[in-house]
Amino acid sequence: MNINQKSWLKVEVNSDFPIQNLPYGIIKLASGKIVAATRIGDVVIDLAALYELGYFNGVKELKNNVFESDTLNAFMALGKRAWANVRAVLTDLFDEVNDLLRENDAHKKQVLFDQNEVVNLLPMAVGDYTDFYSSIEHATNVGIMFRGKDNALMPNWKHLPVGYHGRSSSIVVSGTNIHRPKGQMKPADQDLPSFGASKLMDFELEMAFVTGGQTQLGDSISVDEAEDYIFGMIIFNDLSARDIQAWEYVPLGPFLGKSFGSITSPWIVTLDALDYFRTQSPKQEPEVLPYLKSTGKRSFDINLEVFLQPKGGEENLICESNHKYLYWNISQQLAHQSVNGCNINVGDVYASGTISGPTDKSFGSMLELTWRGSKPITLSDGSERKFINDNDTIVMRAHCQKDGLRIGFGESLCQILPAKE
Amino acid sequence: MNINQKSWLKVEVNSDFPIQNLPYGIIKLASGKIVAATRIGDVVIDLAALYELGYFNGVKELKNNVFESDTLNAFMALGKRAWANVRAVLTDLFDEVNDLLRENDAHKKQVLFDQNEVVNLLPMAVGDYTDFYSSIEHATNVGIMFRGKDNALMPNWKHLPVGYHGRSSSIVVSGTNIHRPKGQMKPADQDLPSFGASKLMDFELEMAFVTGGQTQLGDSISVDEAEDYIFGMIIFNDLSARDIQAWEYVPLGPFLGKSFGSITSPWIVTLDALDYFRTQSPKQEPEVLPYLKSTGKRSFDINLEVFLQPKGGEENLICESNHKYLYWNISQQLAHQSVNGCNINVGDVYASGTISGPTDKSFGSMLELTWRGSKPITLSDGSERKFINDNDTIVMRAHCQKDGLRIGFGESLCQILPAKE
Repeated sequence: MNINQKSWLKVEVNSDFPIQNLPYGIIKLASGKIVAATRIGDVVIDLAALYELGYFNGVKELKNNVFESDTLNAFMALGKRAWANVRAVLTDLFDEVNDLLRENDAHKKQVLFDQNEVVNLLPMAVGDYTDFYSSIEHATNVGIMFRGKDNALMPNWKHLPVGYHGRSSSIVVSGTNIHRPKGQMKPADQDLPSFGASKLMDFELEMAFVTGGQTQLGDSISVDEAEDYIFGMIIFNDLSARDIQAWEYVPLGPFLGKSFGSITSPWIVTLDALDYFRTQSPKQEPEVLPYLKSTGKRSFDINLEVFLQPKGGEENLICESNHKYLYWNISQQLAHQSVNGCNINVGDVYASGTISGPTDKSFGSMLELTWRGSKPITLSDGSERKFINDNDTIVMRAHCQKDGLRIGFGESLCQILPAKE
Repeated sequence: MNINQKSWLKVEVNSDFPIQNLPYGIIKLASGKIVAATRIGDVVIDLAALYELGYFNGVKELKNNVFESDTLNAFMALGKRAWANVRAVLTDLFDEVNDLLRENDAHKKQVLFDQNEVVNLLPMAVGDYTDFYSSIEHATNVGIMFRGKDNALMPNWKHLPVGYHGRSSSIVVSGTNIHRPKGQMKPADQDLPSFGASKLMDFELEMAFVTGGQTQLGDSISVDEAEDYIFGMIIFNDLSARDIQAWEYVPLGPFLGKSFGSITSPWIVTLDALDYFRTQSPKQEPEVLPYLKSTGKRSFDINLEVFLQPKGGEENLICESNHKYLYWNISQQLAHQSVNGCNINVGDVYASGTISGPTDKSFGSMLELTWRGSKPITLSDGSERKFINDNDTIVMRAHCQKDGLRIGFGESLCQILPAKE
């Protein structure tokens, strides 16, 4: 990657989308047509139209127009070489010195759209969804709150990336608002459970990776091979109803406390785009079993932010964390997921679990930020929050920055609507 | 349903597939073509061919040939009225007094195939998969083994149908053999976990229902409406590696101990076919919350059997249970699943959890049958089993029987192969 490369498309200084990013998404055009796209600055690029106009003729993996689709799955399924070749075409075509498309107004009209003219849809048809629990700070915080300091981390936690199967159907794209869920809960001071709207609505600041490869049942993926199967990453807000979760989750894990909405960012940022921001994973003590051993830089330095915006009010930055804090990296997660022969599909989503850092300000959920409601957050309008109120909007943003290059993910935005009658 | 109706197709006395059954499946013909099918006796009926020949012309919901597909999803998505109308056509066409097809040898050649000439495939593209835990006998048995008699049932168990999200990708059809999984485990007498092939391979005798309807995120389904969304039921063998499960599952539930293979029967038996075998659900004490209240006969009297067959040996009947033992019925399960606004899709699979009955012989897993290995089962060849050995085959069968009418599910069959090198 040439970190100094510029595009002939305008890119603002703090844009998440320089020519080095080239993320993939699914957009609905003003015409109603739904296609795969990429983005530079605030310009969205219709890949299906580029294909029809012959710009991808040199990419032999593209035997038909996989971009004319309402999901990225067919493109992702073509594999790593296809991803690299498409990226190379785009990197060249939009370079500031290339006037092939720049000087063709008719083509530009068919291909380029202002971000404000299009609607982003969920970029993939989700196969399975796993939610890991890979932040040691988050697991420790939750452990201290619920089991005390001495038993904070479970005995298995440092030996394997703990995770659970999540609900795929309720994964939605940024901008989808979610009603506060109803369900059963049993506050500690009551003998019997009651039914109603959740009182303890929370977000979880997570990132997820999306697989673009697949395996057969019975096969496993090693840590070293894992990245060959990973297409890219997204921001992932795993909404959680803490009161529903607390009552239901023993012994089989989270269920309805988590399955009413998880909100992704709309653009999948590829591992190629993130390559420049690799970093070492935290040291793992005790040593992990051989199938989980990871060498080299398999973690990513991605700044994460969470904002809470009351209705009609301004955004309040309430959390700053970083993807690099994760104790278990994405390659270890995928190796663990498949070590028992579990098959991987194109479009699977593997989320990190809440990413908390070492400081109070870096905790990735209201549960931790307010320490179970005991230390409310004061917003800029003077109001307090223990958990999320009705009509609050949660915005998560993520970006990498190094040597003047910024590559970002855009945002995951969701307003919490009142419970349905 | 006319329980005395006969078909002009031959049905053996103990067949699972009289004309009153008319289950749906996906078959691969000798020609390689993949189509939706039903079955009477040992004759498989190509529904796509029936459609092409005009036999469904009277069914206005069938606007195109949804049977020409490798899944039943498009047919299921047409809804309850379409299911009933297709069933009515088949019930009429194959009645013993109807000679429309019976006397048309050219058509019969295109439509009818011997079960032995076709291969059954997985009948649906699975959306999400939930595994409930709805047998009180099973939950109690497991509770006694792991927590003692006084804490056997968790406080939430009688208030809601406990369940968890499972892995969809590893759901396979009967006849798919599964390698013993590898993974981490930590026997009680070791300080550190080790890696290897599971030593405690188990089956779980379950039934699952498949949804044919869908809802939007935020919507809920009541107990009374639930059956409108349910297409039918299948046998479900939820293979479990008890040692992997025991080490990994705290606090987020079962994960790799369950995601290496779950085996369904190939034919989805519809609720219309099961209607004659409805029965009252067990009395629920304490009373459940209003959204879970169930009236009328929402349980089904389905005899369940598990056989263990050593390599080259004969089948040993090791468990006899019944679907009607389930404390939570399928309508309550679906109402609970959606009460938080979680959206339901066509092709979702909702499994019951292990169905154990009140007697030792009715326990639905090796874990319970051998009481954690402390009471091995002796097979007819004199060998003993605490759990499943390599090359053992597990066969599950299920059928209803009343007033001379037998409606069955066929079988879920799976051989456990040695762990891969």
